[in-house]
Amino acid sequence: MKMRFSKTYKRIVLDSSFKNWQKLSKYYMWLNKAHLLMLYKTGIVPKGICSEIAEGLRRIENERIEDELPEGIEDFVFLIENKLSKIVGIEKAGFLHTARSRNDIDATVFRMCVRDALMGLSHHVIDALIAIVQKAKTNLNTILLLYTHGQPAQVSTLAHFLLAFGFDVADTLDILVDCLSIVNTCPMGSCAITTTGFPIDRVMVSDYLGFSEPIENSYRAIVTSHWVSLPSSCLKILMNDLTRFVQEIVPKSSCEVGIFQFPDDLVQVSSIMPQKRNPVVLEHIRLRAGTAHGIFDAVEKVFLNTPYQDINENGDHVLFEFLRAVRMAEEVLLLFREVVQRISVDQERVKELSRKTGATTTELADELVRTFGISFRQAHTIVSQYVSSGMKYDVLCETFEKICGRKLSLSEEQIERILSPEHFVEVRKVLGGPHERSVNEAIERLEGFVRSIKERTETLEIKTKNSLAKLEADFRQL
Amino acid sequence: MKMRFSKTYKRIVLDSSFKNWQKLSKYYMWLNKAHLLMLYKTGIVPKGICSEIAEGLRRIENERIEDELPEGIEDFVFLIENKLSKIVGIEKAGFLHTARSRNDIDATVFRMCVRDALMGLSHHVIDALIAIVQKAKTNLNTILLLYTHGQPAQVSTLAHFLLAFGFDVADTLDILVDCLSIVNTCPMGSCAITTTGFPIDRVMVSDYLGFSEPIENSYRAIVTSHWVSLPSSCLKILMNDLTRFVQEIVPKSSCEVGIFQFPDDLVQVSSIMPQKRNPVVLEHIRLRAGTAHGIFDAVEKVFLNTPYQDINENGDHVLFEFLRAVRMAEEVLLLFREVVQRISVDQERVKELSRKTGATTTELADELVRTFGISFRQAHTIVSQYVSSGMKYDVLCETFEKICGRKLSLSEEQIERILSPEHFVEVRKVLGGPHERSVNEAIERLEGFVRSIKERTETLEIKTKNSLAKLEADFRQL
Amino acid sequence: MKMRFSKTYKRIVLDSSFKNWQKLSKYYMWLNKAHLLMLYKTGIVPKGICSEIAEGLRRIENERIEDELPEGIEDFVFLIENKLSKIVGIEKAGFLHTARSRNDIDATVFRMCVRDALMGLSHHVIDALIAIVQKAKTNLNTILLLYTHGQPAQVSTLAHFLLAFGFDVADTLDILVDCLSIVNTCPMGSCAITTTGFPIDRVMVSDYLGFSEPIENSYRAIVTSHWVSLPSSCLKILMNDLTRFVQEIVPKSSCEVGIFQFPDDLVQVSSIMPQKRNPVVLEHIRLRAGTAHGIFDAVEKVFLNTPYQDINENGDHVLFEFLRAVRMAEEVLLLFREVVQRISVDQERVKELSRKTGATTTELADELVRTFGISFRQAHTIVSQYVSSGMKYDVLCETFEKICGRKLSLSEEQIERILSPEHFVEVRKVLGGPHERSVNEAIERLEGFVRSIKERTETLEIKTKNSLAKLEADFRQL
Amino acid sequence: MKMRFSKTYKRIVLDSSFKNWQKLSKYYMWLNKAHLLMLYKTGIVPKGICSEIAEGLRRIENERIEDELPEGIEDFVFLIENKLSKIVGIEKAGFLHTARSRNDIDATVFRMCVRDALMGLSHHVIDALIAIVQKAKTNLNTILLLYTHGQPAQVSTLAHFLLAFGFDVADTLDILVDCLSIVNTCPMGSCAITTTGFPIDRVMVSDYLGFSEPIENSYRAIVTSHWVSLPSSCLKILMNDLTRFVQEIVPKSSCEVGIFQFPDDLVQVSSIMPQKRNPVVLEHIRLRAGTAHGIFDAVEKVFLNTPYQDINENGDHVLFEFLRAVRMAEEVLLLFREVVQRISVDQERVKELSRKTGATTTELADELVRTFGISFRQAHTIVSQYVSSGMKYDVLCETFEKICGRKLSLSEEQIERILSPEHFVEVRKVLGGPHERSVNEAIERLEGFVRSIKERTETLEIKTKNSLAKLEADFRQL
Repeated sequence: MKMRFSKTYKRIVLDSSFKNWQKLSKYYMWLNKAHLLMLYKTGIVPKGICSEIAEGLRRIENERIEDELPEGIEDFVFLIENKLSKIVGIEKAGFLHTARSRNDIDATVFRMCVRDALMGLSHHVIDALIAIVQKAKTNLNTILLLYTHGQPAQVSTLAHFLLAFGFDVADTLDILVDCLSIVNTCPMGSCAITTTGFPIDRVMVSDYLGFSEPIENSYRAIVTSHWVSLPSSCLKILMNDLTRFVQEIVPKSSCEVGIFQFPDDLVQVSSIMPQKRNPVVLEHIRLRAGTAHGIFDAVEKVFLNTPYQDINENGDHVLFEFLRAVRMAEEVLLLFREVVQRISVDQERVKELSRKTGATTTELADELVRTFGISFRQAHTIVSQYVSSGMKYDVLCETFEKICGRKLSLSEEQIERILSPEHFVEVRKVLGGPHERSVNEAIERLEGFVRSIKERTETLEIKTKNSLAKLEADFRQL
Repeated sequence: MKMRFSKTYKRIVLDSSFKNWQKLSKYYMWLNKAHLLMLYKTGIVPKGICSEIAEGLRRIENERIEDELPEGIEDFVFLIENKLSKIVGIEKAGFLHTARSRNDIDATVFRMCVRDALMGLSHHVIDALIAIVQKAKTNLNTILLLYTHGQPAQVSTLAHFLLAFGFDVADTLDILVDCLSIVNTCPMGSCAITTTGFPIDRVMVSDYLGFSEPIENSYRAIVTSHWVSLPSSCLKILMNDLTRFVQEIVPKSSCEVGIFQFPDDLVQVSSIMPQKRNPVVLEHIRLRAGTAHGIFDAVEKVFLNTPYQDINENGDHVLFEFLRAVRMAEEVLLLFREVVQRISVDQERVKELSRKTGATTTELADELVRTFGISFRQAHTIVSQYVSSGMKYDVLCETFEKICGRKLSLSEEQIERILSPEHFVEVRKVLGGPHERSVNEAIERLEGFVRSIKERTETLEIKTKNSLAKLEADFRQL
Repeated sequence: MKMRFSKTYKRIVLDSSFKNWQKLSKYYMWLNKAHLLMLYKTGIVPKGICSEIAEGLRRIENERIEDELPEGIEDFVFLIENKLSKIVGIEKAGFLHTARSRNDIDATVFRMCVRDALMGLSHHVIDALIAIVQKAKTNLNTILLLYTHGQPAQVSTLAHFLLAFGFDVADTLDILVDCLSIVNTCPMGSCAITTTGFPIDRVMVSDYLGFSEPIENSYRAIVTSHWVSLPSSCLKILMNDLTRFVQEIVPKSSCEVGIFQFPDDLVQVSSIMPQKRNPVVLEHIRLRAGTAHGIFDAVEKVFLNTPYQDINENGDHVLFEFLRAVRMAEEVLLLFREVVQRISVDQERVKELSRKTGATTTELADELVRTFGISFRQAHTIVSQYVSSGMKYDVLCETFEKICGRKLSLSEEQIERILSPEHFVEVRKVLGGPHERSVNEAIERLEGFVRSIKERTETLEIKTKNSLAKLEADFRQL
Repeated sequence: MKMRFSKTYKRIVLDSSFKNWQKLSKYYMWLNKAHLLMLYKTGIVPKGICSEIAEGLRRIENERIEDELPEGIEDFVFLIENKLSKIVGIEKAGFLHTARSRNDIDATVFRMCVRDALMGLSHHVIDALIAIVQKAKTNLNTILLLYTHGQPAQVSTLAHFLLAFGFDVADTLDILVDCLSIVNTCPMGSCAITTTGFPIDRVMVSDYLGFSEPIENSYRAIVTSHWVSLPSSCLKILMNDLTRFVQEIVPKSSCEVGIFQFPDDLVQVSSIMPQKRNPVVLEHIRLRAGTAHGIFDAVEKVFLNTPYQDINENGDHVLFEFLRAVRMAEEVLLLFREVVQRISVDQERVKELSRKTGATTTELADELVRTFGISFRQAHTIVSQYVSSGMKYDVLCETFEKICGRKLSLSEEQIERILSPEHFVEVRKVLGGPHERSVNEAIERLEGFVRSIKERTETLEIKTKNSLAKLEADFRQL
């Protein structure tokens, strides 16, 4: 048999595309069924022919697809047409391709696949958020030391800290589910570019395949990058945020700092340094998040400066890069969830560090302002000298007297209490602060968000499932 | 006077930051006023002191700020405190800094600035969309040739083509305005990280400054990158799309293709090639969109692998890179709008090319299917041979007869009509197609979107304006 | 048996790393042999023990490695140690790990692997360059139309055009082979970070493994990213250049432009547009080059803002991303070579377009300058008006007379000759120009480069091969 | 006067380009002189006319260039031609543009500018390297604790640590100077694309302008991105490395870790946390290095998928982005040098941490191997248990006896000595290790590199300077 394509081209382009399409097979079969039902119901193709094609498709579905693309056949779509021709004859098989094209087939199949991938990923993000909420609930009063500029800064709680990050994750999840809505619109009926002269029913196909609606412009349906660039863009931010979370945790998990601790089964040892306990899981999150970030970026960038018309960037090659990055992102989220669930804070060490580093002295300055009516700047100056002295009570009294012209009426015990980490958190009741009450409000808010986004995602999943079930049922009747 | 900072550090870091803050001055003054009003109304700072500080701020506002950061002063915020101290005395001046920190000041000022930038940019995107709609309305029947894989593919209209891109722009605009909502939340009251023990009213400050609400977690308020990374991420997609639009237009504007034409005032000549007419404006859009894409990417990437705690990436340096990219994006949108408004399609040339390249022959195949009930694959084969023959009517008839076993009952004139570009568009009435009716529906939809997004943006602008007006009025009374 | 690691951690991190290391097995075995020979020859480990270990390693080499990482074992390196312990006893097996660590093992194995990958890739680049040279040699006088700003600009030859790109490829190849030299230095002996107190011979191990020399600083040997970031960075440019080449070719391959042509076996058809012939191979090069560009970028970016100390980014995860991109780059180069070899230029069409677009009129202006001693600007003005008139000889004569005050002493035939594409090329004999002589000089230069770079690469390959052969021979004697 | 260009186009494109070119003015004037001298010496333009033009150019050079691009003039190049026309008449002025085009003018001017930028930047890199060498020389025995996986790992010295990074910087500097050689080749004579029919002398112009040689292919000379993409790519790696250096330093500078210390004039305070001392300079290096990394990336990426022919990406817009990033990189290097010079290590703290974290226990294991001939794995097990016990001598003795079946013949004092940081460094004499001798060898090597690269750069600078001096001298004689 004469080879149709250059050997190099076949091996590099066609064969690799075929391998990808084997994994998309189920979506393509659904698409065939929905399209056929539409051709049948609109009367575009005679009913008898439709039934024969339906029968053919059922037989193909039960057969095993070849592992390799047969010589002389261009791609998976032509292979299926080829099989159908062998069953029902070439004239009848040809009717299935009425009012469609590989362009809208590709675009539709890819969106169904991305929809699944994003729904799956959303659950991983939701699970991570739930882990954060759970951990926060059981750590409302777990004292934690927060840093700025790499230096111990102020005292807070583990709950307050985790929620901060939780709300960042929620932002991106929200956008991700918005992207899912954009993805979940149906290109079918756009044909090559401009729809068709046949009286097709695009809504029917869209409904059967579980989409929210047909895309409003047939050219855009074929050429837009948004089905893959928008989710990539949003997931890039999520991955970026996760690298930041890790980099926050790592130095505080160093043995000589000793704030965070991990159980043994998340820790690796050294092959030659007997003393080492490395929470390498953190680095593996960072590394994978960074890599996924890079691949999501690659996916988006691949469209840069390509003509709007060009649909190869919209092909399976880019799709499968995207899917790879989604899988990596899922791994990142699983490891992250494990870290959230298993991390613990050494309370003794945190309190010791808080005392030693003066992380609560802002509160002493504030207290001086409140109790003695001096200005914040004055209080700040007094406390600074106190800190410089190594927190000597005498120095505090002297400095206060020198600057305010009166005696400091607070005993050493009172100062001690004011400087305690518990007190620091206790007085921060303001909206958004670390006090239990504020944190509980925040938890409620985040839980509310998780509930609603979960509902939104699950609604979409159920709708998709039901649509496809109806499709299969109707198809059986054909 | 003893120099406080290393010369290199002062020059590179402090001085450049000061230059940036001079441009943020108005936001900082608003923030001072709102914070002071809150301290006054909550009674945290004695009323008399508040009034004196208010008077001091009014005087500072009327003075000229130094061009250079004075020696020994760290930054703009300290400079203003310094000025205030000179007016009302250091003890009283210090009260203004009660229950706040540079961290929440920075975060709040930057968000006000980004809010302005995004509102401004949104209008440019809206204007671009309006230009698309206008152009589409006046070009409902302007025949255009669309390509795939760099080859003429099918006939459509200028309206249909422009709308495809319009809906892509609408996607990103929608996300951009969502980002604006995320940006428009207020960090003030977060202080350094953990709020404060003073009974501040975060909602009051947020309202005065026109924000929708205070941020729900004080740590996040200080450290999240979302105020700048989310808009960057979304604008990156918009810029990417614009490069694709340009790359679609450029080859069709080449003189030997001759589909698109531009008026002389958008065309440059060569200094040595007398025949050249270069629509360089297209390349300048691409180039600037590509550069803005790159800077938006840089802004987002700068956070990668930085500890969540670190707030320097959240500083003025990154903000001003972002603002630069926003300005570049505005230029891109202005040039793009000019292109949309001024571009024209050479109808004669398009029709000639449509004929020569067989860009309407899909329709002939479809017509054979409809009229003679043959399968699409058969029709496709017949028409392929007709095309190969150089569109000889005889060949069409012969092939049809050979494959279908009967005579082709369509005259040469009928074939001619079926192959006409006008007919091609005329029959594509399906949802999303190029027919006038479908396009008008799409226009209505896009106009509806533009109206609602415009309203959403303007509502925000009015709310912001009114909030700040109320702030100024209340402040005058202090 | 008690599970040592968290299930999630094992699955995501350890198992995937193990799969990667299975592919690195041969490098690790070489390393073991070289290290053991060194321990033997320096007397660090008793000879008898060395021989027993050698025997054990030989047995392991002949066994099949498990497909899955056994429970309770951390990684591939520990698995091999484990196997060795079972053969020679744990006490003796332990000697092999004297004066080494997983850190220097990893770094060394990865560099050996990258060395192979880069040598392989270099040959693909060299082959592409050879294809360019060959094509140039047989197309010295194949007229081609070159564009600027998307518009036909001037006439050149296919040889001249291809060589331009060839020299760009040569630039990156040169840097790539420089990177190979940086990669080809040996980390072994660095141990965990700081070398060891044992009197090891780093040069011996380096020599056995085919490296040029040991790395001069043991910390750097472990933490630098250069073994993977430098080649990535250089290959990114190569991929970028290849996208540019494709984008140059695509519009000129459009059927209505018709400059470039491809044989059928590189062209795909449309499933519904009978007239289409898509040279999709071009898009597939662009797409893969763009993706590889993105992954190389991801590899480099993953190190951004990670502590210099951190060696997980230097791990197998990033290595295998890099290898994937290298494989993709090889596919790009194979497709590119096919395009270079198979592309042809339609001479009739080029000449027609040259005439119609005035692509040779610069030469007429130059000729007027040379013949009549008028200034270039004047000549340019005269020729511009001639072009505007649609190249009417009368207009040329009139304008010349008006501007120069004398009659144009060139006949219509002479003008015709001056404007011929062949003449345009003929007179451009200057260094770097399209004339056969200049192009032949360039070909010689490029061939010289190819020869020398090929020699450089092959020398390295032979040296590597010989080193490893000597290693195996010496090891057999142990 | 009739406006030639669209208002928007003029403002956004032409005016901004004009502003850029004002800064390139000196390069353009040199180019004019070199080109004119060549036209004169080759006799292409009559000597008298050349002299008049020379005189005109001298007058223009002494005039002030307009701040704004005058209406109706396209760009800087046309403005100068315009001025020249006013002086010597339009006919004569036109001769200057013989055998050149804006394409080769642009490419040549930009390369001269980039050459200057890279030479300037190279000196900053060299200075940074010198600072590293100096610091290393004075800190040969300054004990430092090195980490892996964020955990204290082993003891080394400040010199050993700094040199590791120094050699990484040297790698990129070497490539940078190679890039400079690629940049320093001359496009002039390429004219629009294909050179010219005039008998120009490209070598003469190249020599006058200080280039090494004319570019070997005229099309490439105009369209290659390498003059800006290659340096960007290499500087990206340098910036990436610098972010890694900073991230290594930051956690070790945290007050509770206390390894690194900075003088007061590199430290900022908090506005409300009295205890804070933030070495923010580190973050500013990271931030700027990250931003510069992003802009260099943007510069390279802007070429992606643009046709090879397109020369607008090769224009002043991209050049000035590149120059901005170069300036930022210089700032990064200045701050980095300051950090290297001013950083100090708290020896007491390092020793305390080394002891507490067991960072020298590898050496104890090694010593057991050496002294008692046990295997490394056994020694590792013994020492691990010793570490687990909190380094109790009794436990060490017991475990040793249990595993080895004999008594440990090392006294507690001997163990203490073996575990001392000084001893750890002392025994690591191997090539690349931290011992003074090894480090001195490395310093010598690095100093040798610095010397040779400095010489290479200075030779180029002197050659450039001399060439331009000769140009000016010869031009004065015209």
